[in-house]
Amino acid sequence: MNIENNIKTLFVKKPLKLDCGKTIDNFPIAYETYGSLNEKKDNAILVFHALTGDQFVTGLNPITKKEGWWSYAVGPDKAIDTKKYFVICSNVIGGCMGSFGPSHIDPHTGKVFGTNFPILTINDMVNAQLNLLDHFGIDKLFSIAGGSMGGMQVLQFISNFPDKSKTVVPIACTSSHSAQNIAFNELGRQAIAADSNWKDGTYSSNNTNPNKGLAVARMAAHITYLSKKGLQEKFGRKLQEREDVKFGFDADFQIESYLRYQGSVFVDRFDANSYLYITRAMDYFDLSKQFYGNLSNAFKATKAKFFIMSFTSDWLYPTQENKDIVIALNSIGADVGFVEIKSDKGHDSFLLDVPDFLSALKNFLDKSYLEN
Amino acid sequence: MNIENNIKTLFVKKPLKLDCGKTIDNFPIAYETYGSLNEKKDNAILVFHALTGDQFVTGLNPITKKEGWWSYAVGPDKAIDTKKYFVICSNVIGGCMGSFGPSHIDPHTGKVFGTNFPILTINDMVNAQLNLLDHFGIDKLFSIAGGSMGGMQVLQFISNFPDKSKTVVPIACTSSHSAQNIAFNELGRQAIAADSNWKDGTYSSNNTNPNKGLAVARMAAHITYLSKKGLQEKFGRKLQEREDVKFGFDADFQIESYLRYQGSVFVDRFDANSYLYITRAMDYFDLSKQFYGNLSNAFKATKAKFFIMSFTSDWLYPTQENKDIVIALNSIGADVGFVEIKSDKGHDSFLLDVPDFLSALKNFLDKSYLEN
Repeated sequence: MNIENNIKTLFVKKPLKLDCGKTIDNFPIAYETYGSLNEKKDNAILVFHALTGDQFVTGLNPITKKEGWWSYAVGPDKAIDTKKYFVICSNVIGGCMGSFGPSHIDPHTGKVFGTNFPILTINDMVNAQLNLLDHFGIDKLFSIAGGSMGGMQVLQFISNFPDKSKTVVPIACTSSHSAQNIAFNELGRQAIAADSNWKDGTYSSNNTNPNKGLAVARMAAHITYLSKKGLQEKFGRKLQEREDVKFGFDADFQIESYLRYQGSVFVDRFDANSYLYITRAMDYFDLSKQFYGNLSNAFKATKAKFFIMSFTSDWLYPTQENKDIVIALNSIGADVGFVEIKSDKGHDSFLLDVPDFLSALKNFLDKSYLEN
Repeated sequence: MNIENNIKTLFVKKPLKLDCGKTIDNFPIAYETYGSLNEKKDNAILVFHALTGDQFVTGLNPITKKEGWWSYAVGPDKAIDTKKYFVICSNVIGGCMGSFGPSHIDPHTGKVFGTNFPILTINDMVNAQLNLLDHFGIDKLFSIAGGSMGGMQVLQFISNFPDKSKTVVPIACTSSHSAQNIAFNELGRQAIAADSNWKDGTYSSNNTNPNKGLAVARMAAHITYLSKKGLQEKFGRKLQEREDVKFGFDADFQIESYLRYQGSVFVDRFDANSYLYITRAMDYFDLSKQFYGNLSNAFKATKAKFFIMSFTSDWLYPTQENKDIVIALNSIGADVGFVEIKSDKGHDSFLLDVPDFLSALKNFLDKSYLEN
C-alpha cells in the first residue's frame, strides 16, 4: 500500500498523556474531510470510525480502492449531507491508516514499535482527535457521530468535552464492553497470537506476516456483525458452486466461502498489531466506571442534544445496552431521542443500506441544524 | 494418555458403507456402560455424546481424571437413573477416545490417517452405533437421548431404525445445521488449519501438534455455548486477580483467563483432526434434506414416544429450531412432548445442574418406563 501520497496528516506537537501513564508527542493523526466548512464554522461533523474502519468515510478509498465504509450514510444529499456539512474523520491512534500506531517506528529504538507501542484507550483516541478542532479553527462541532466503536468514541468525546458539540449521535454501541464482547475480542487476539508468524508482534522486522491468524480473527468478528436470521436468509445451507457436498474440507457451503473471503481480503488492508491494540481499547471501555458507577455523571456537564440509535437484530451491542445510555441521560433530564430500527442485518446495519436508519439519521441532523 | 487399558472396545467386522461412498470394516467402537441390563433387556438407554464428548458419561473419566460430561444427569437416582436403566454410550466414529478416527493407523499405508480418513456424517455415526445393540443382544432400546450433536444422532437414529427405541429424547438440537452454526464450525476449522503445526493434518507423523489453533477453535465454540446474559452475570467485567487493568495483553479480565484456560485444557484431551471431522459431520446434518424437504417423513415409520427439550437462552440451537422438530412430529400425529426450560446458562444448560431440566427428563423417562 502506498499510504503516504494519499493521506492528509496532522502532526500533533502538544504532548498527550495516555491513560497507561505514558506520554506521546509529535505524533501523526491521519484524517480526511468531505464537504466545506462554512464561514461561521458551525457545520462540522466529526465522524468516528469502528474497529476496522479508517478516515476514508465515503467515496473511493484511495488505499483499498473500495467504497468508503460509510458511503451509504455520508455524501451529497445523503443522511450526513456533505453539501451541507463539513465531515471530518480521522484514523484512530493505534490504527494502521496513517495515524500513530504499532506499525510506526519507535524513534528511541529505530525499530517498529510492535507490542512496545503503548496500550491505548478510547479516552486516548478522542483526546488525540480533539486536536483536529484546533487545526480547523472549529470552536464547536455541529455533531459527532459514529457506530460501534465509533459510538463509544462519541460518548467519550462528549463526556470529556461537553461544550464541543451541539448534537451527539452514538449508534449501535454500548457504554461498557460486556463479557461476551470481551470474549469475542480475546478470541481474535488469541487467533493472532497463535499464528507462529506473529512472533510476539515483531513480524515486520522478521519479514513475516500473521495473516492466517488475522484472517481467523476477522472471521470470528464477522460472524458477530451479522444476525442469525440474516445469515440464514442470505446463505442458509446454500452450496458453493456445486450440486452436493463434496465430502471434504473445501468450502462446500456459501457461508464458508464467504467467511474465507472476508478473512483473506481483510489482511490486505489491516495490521495485526493494530487489531490487538484497538480491540484492547474497546475492552477497556467502561464509561460508567470512569464516573464511579454513575453513567449519568458522564453527561451532566453537557447541554448537547443526543440521538441514540440501535437495531433489532444487533446481538453484539443489543438495544438494551443502547437503552441504558438513554436511561442515564433521561435521569438527568438531558435532551435525548432514541430509535430502535427494525433490521435483520445485525450489527452491520449501521454500515448498510437500511432506509429507516438513514432517514432517521438525516431527519435528526437536518432538523437540529435548522435550529442552529 | 493411556487409552487402551481403560477402554472397552467392540470391533465391528461387518462392513459399513459410509455416505461418502467409502466402506469401512473391522473398525473399533469404544464404549462404556452404566447400570445393569435386566433379563428382559428392555431397560437400555443409548446416550449419544456431543462434539467434544466421549463414552465416559458419568463418574470419573479414567482418561481425563475428571467427571464424566453428563454426571449431573446420569447416575444412581439421577434423571437417567442407573439403578433402573442400563446406559450405553460410545465414542462416535471420527472421535479420539478409542473409536475409529483420523488418529488411527491406515492399514493400507501404515501411517496415521489424518485427513485421509473418510469424511463422516451423523448418519454414519449412528449406523456404526447400531452394532452395539447386537453386541448386547438388545432388540429394542427403552430410550435414546442426547444433547446438541447427541440430539442430532437421536433424530437420525430413530429415523434410520424406527423400531429400535421405545422413547426418543433429543435435547437442545436441530434437524438441520444453520448458516450461523456452520459459520462457527468453519471458524474453528480455519483456526486449526491456520496453525502451522497442523501441516495439512499430518502433525502426528511430524511430531508436532496444532494445539494453539485447536485452543482457539475451542474458545470460539465455548463462547457459543454460553448466553450473553450468563457470561455477564458470571464474569461481567471482573478482573483477574488485579485491582485495575494492567495496560497490556495479559488476561486482565476473568473472562479472558477463563477462555484461555478452556482452550488449554481442551488440547490435552482432544485431537485436532477429530475436531475437523466431527464439525464437518454436524455441518452436513440436514435430516429434512434426506427426506426431500419434508422433515415429517423422517419420523413417519416410528411409533416411538418423543420428548423434546430446549433452553430459553440457547442461541446456538434456539427453541425455535427445536420446535420445528415438534411441528414436524405433530403434523403426522406422533406422540410428542415438548418443554422449553428457563435457564440463563445457554446451550451448555443440558450439561449443567439445571433442576427443571433434570426433573423433566427424569419424569418423562420414569413415567414412560412404568408404561412398559
